[in-house]
Amino acid sequence: MTKVTVLGAGAMGSAICNPLVKAGWDVHLWGTWLDDHLIDAIDAGEPHPRTGAIISPQVTTYRSADLEKALEGAHVVILAVASVGVPKITEMALNGMSAAESVWLTSKGFNPDSEGTIELLPTTLRRIASNAGKSLPHIVAVAGPVKANECANGEPTATIFGCRDLSVAQKYAQQASTEHYRIEVTDDEAGVEICAPMKNVYAISLGIADGLEEASGNPHHNLKAATFTQAVKEMSVLGQAMGAKPETAFGLAGVGDLEVTGLSGRNKVYGLRLGRGEAPDDALAEMERMEQTVEGVPAARYAKELVKQLEITEEQVPLFFAIDRILAGGIEDVKEEIAQAVLPRP
Amino acid sequence: MTKVTVLGAGAMGSAICNPLVKAGWDVHLWGTWLDDHLIDAIDAGEPHPRTGAIISPQVTTYRSADLEKALEGAHVVILAVASVGVPKITEMALNGMSAAESVWLTSKGFNPDSEGTIELLPTTLRRIASNAGKSLPHIVAVAGPVKANECANGEPTATIFGCRDLSVAQKYAQQASTEHYRIEVTDDEAGVEICAPMKNVYAISLGIADGLEEASGNPHHNLKAATFTQAVKEMSVLGQAMGAKPETAFGLAGVGDLEVTGLSGRNKVYGLRLGRGEAPDDALAEMERMEQTVEGVPAARYAKELVKQLEITEEQVPLFFAIDRILAGGIEDVKEEIAQAVLPRP
Repeated sequence: MTKVTVLGAGAMGSAICNPLVKAGWDVHLWGTWLDDHLIDAIDAGEPHPRTGAIISPQVTTYRSADLEKALEGAHVVILAVASVGVPKITEMALNGMSAAESVWLTSKGFNPDSEGTIELLPTTLRRIASNAGKSLPHIVAVAGPVKANECANGEPTATIFGCRDLSVAQKYAQQASTEHYRIEVTDDEAGVEICAPMKNVYAISLGIADGLEEASGNPHHNLKAATFTQAVKEMSVLGQAMGAKPETAFGLAGVGDLEVTGLSGRNKVYGLRLGRGEAPDDALAEMERMEQTVEGVPAARYAKELVKQLEITEEQVPLFFAIDRILAGGIEDVKEEIAQAVLPRP
Repeated sequence: MTKVTVLGAGAMGSAICNPLVKAGWDVHLWGTWLDDHLIDAIDAGEPHPRTGAIISPQVTTYRSADLEKALEGAHVVILAVASVGVPKITEMALNGMSAAESVWLTSKGFNPDSEGTIELLPTTLRRIASNAGKSLPHIVAVAGPVKANECANGEPTATIFGCRDLSVAQKYAQQASTEHYRIEVTDDEAGVEICAPMKNVYAISLGIADGLEEASGNPHHNLKAATFTQAVKEMSVLGQAMGAKPETAFGLAGVGDLEVTGLSGRNKVYGLRLGRGEAPDDALAEMERMEQTVEGVPAARYAKELVKQLEITEEQVPLFFAIDRILAGGIEDVKEEIAQAVLPRP
C-alpha cells in the first residue's frame, strides 16, 4: 500500500485524506503546532472545524512533535500548510521529503526569497533543498476547482496534477482517482502554480461586480462576465511570462478554479464589500476581526513585485493593475476603474 | 451620419439602438408583425416590455408594413429577430441587405436547411441571397456577454464582432464604441456563431448544479466549476470541427457569454429545475405556461444533428451527450450523469 503523509491538518490537508483513503492509500496526517484542535476533532470523529467534514477514521494522525514518525517510509509527502509556513515546514520535513518518491503541493501562493525575489512555491522547495545539499523527488502541483469541504465529503471534484515529468503525474492520477475525485494531468507546473494565487486576486474583482449590484440594485452581469474573461486572459499572460503554457489558464487550473472561487469564499466577499463602497482597509480590518483571511490581498502584493520582476506592463494585465490600485485605496469610482480595465480597448 | 436599420424590436434589437445612438449613428428600428406593442412602448417613451429599459427617443421606429422605408439607404442592417424568424425576414429584407455595406447578426442559433442540414445563421443568409441571385455584403457576427437590459441602460458591456474580413470588424468596432459599449474583433465568424447557441445548452448544465444544491442543501461548487470548464472546452471542440479557431471559445464569445448566461436567465433556471429533480418535459411545460422560452432546448436538438453531421463523438463532447440524454428524459440520477461527463477520465 502506498504510504502518503500529509503535512498540515487544515481544510485542504485534511480534505485530501478522504479520497486517498477511498483510493486505497495508507494515509497519515500530521498537524502543525497550530493544528492541535484540528487533530483533536479528527481523532474524536467530529466534524473538522474548518470544513465541517468528517475525516476518515482510517487516517493515522500525528501531533507536531511526531513529524519524523509521520514521515517514516512515506512514498508521497503532501505539503498542505498555509503558503507562509511553506519554507519552515519544508526545512523541518526535508529528510522525509528527500527520501520520498514525490512531493505534492496543495499549498499555493507566492514566496519572496531573502532578496525579495518572488518565487512560485516549487522553486522555494527546490532552493531550500539545494541549500541544504539535498535534492527533492518529483514535485506534483495539485490545484484546480476544489473546495475542501466538498472534496472531503466525496462530492464530485475535478483536480489537476502538474508535474514536469508527465508520466509521474499520470501514475499518481491513476492511483489516486476515485469515482468522485478525478484528476487531469499536465506537465505545466508553472501554469498550475501561477493560477492558484492569482485566482484569489481576480476573485476580488468578481466580488466587486456583485457589490455594485447590491449597492445599486442593478445587476452588473455584463461587467462581471467581461471581468471573468479578462481575468482568465491575464492568468494566461502571467503564466506565459513564467514559462507556462498559454492554455493551462483556460482549463481546470484557471477557468475552473476562478469559477469556484468566484462562487463563494472570502476573496469574493471582500470584493463585494469594495463594490458596495467600503474602503479597502476598513473592509479588510472588519474581515480580520471575524478571523476571515483574505488570501487575495497578500497575493496581490506579491504579484505586484512579480509583475515588476517580469517587466509585465499594464497594457498586458490591465485588470491586475486596476485591482492593485483599488486595494491601495484612493480609487473613488471602483466601477469605472474595473470597467475601463476589462472592456476591450477602443 | 451612418444609417443603421435594426430589424426586430425585441430585447436585443432595441437594446443595441442605445449605444449606437450614443456613438453618433442615425438609428432606425423596424418591428415585425409581432412587435407592435414593443414599438408602441418605445414611441411612448415607456420602458421596453422585455428589458425595462428606455430606448432613446432619437431612434426612428417603423411598423411591420414599412420595412422598405426602414431599409432605404441603410449603410448597415442589423438582423435581430428570433433565430426561427431569420430565414423569413432575410427573404423579406433581401434588397435592403444587399444594398447595405454590411449586415450584422445579433440573431443567434442554428438553422436547418430544406434537407435538414444544420447551418450557422451566416450560412443561411448567404444561401438565401444566393438562391435569389443576390449577394450579401460583409456579415458581422455580434456576440459575447451582453444582457440586453444592461446594454440598453448603458452599463459596462463588452461585445465581440466577428467578420471574415477583420478590417471590416475593426472599422465598425471603432465607429460603434462608446464609453461603456466596447467591442473586441475577430475574423473567426464560425467561432463566434457556434458559441452563442451552445452556451444556452451548457447553461442548462450549470443550472443543474445549482438545483442539486437547492435540493440537497449542499453546495455543488466543485461540480459546477468542472462543468463550466468542460463546457468551454467543448465549445472550442465544436468550433474547431466547423473551422473555427480553438481560442475563440476561451474569450468573450465562449467563457464570457457562458459566464453571463449562467448568472441568470431561463436556460439556467430550467437546469435548476432539472437539478431539483423535476422531469424535463414537466419543467419545460411549466416554463412555457409562464411564457418563458428556454432557448437551450431547441438549440440542443439542432446541436445533436450538427454533432452527427460533423461525426463528433461522445468522447469529444461528453457533457453535450449527457445534457442531450437528460433532456430526452429517463435519466434517474442527473448528478451522476453530469459528474461522469465532466470529471477527468481515469
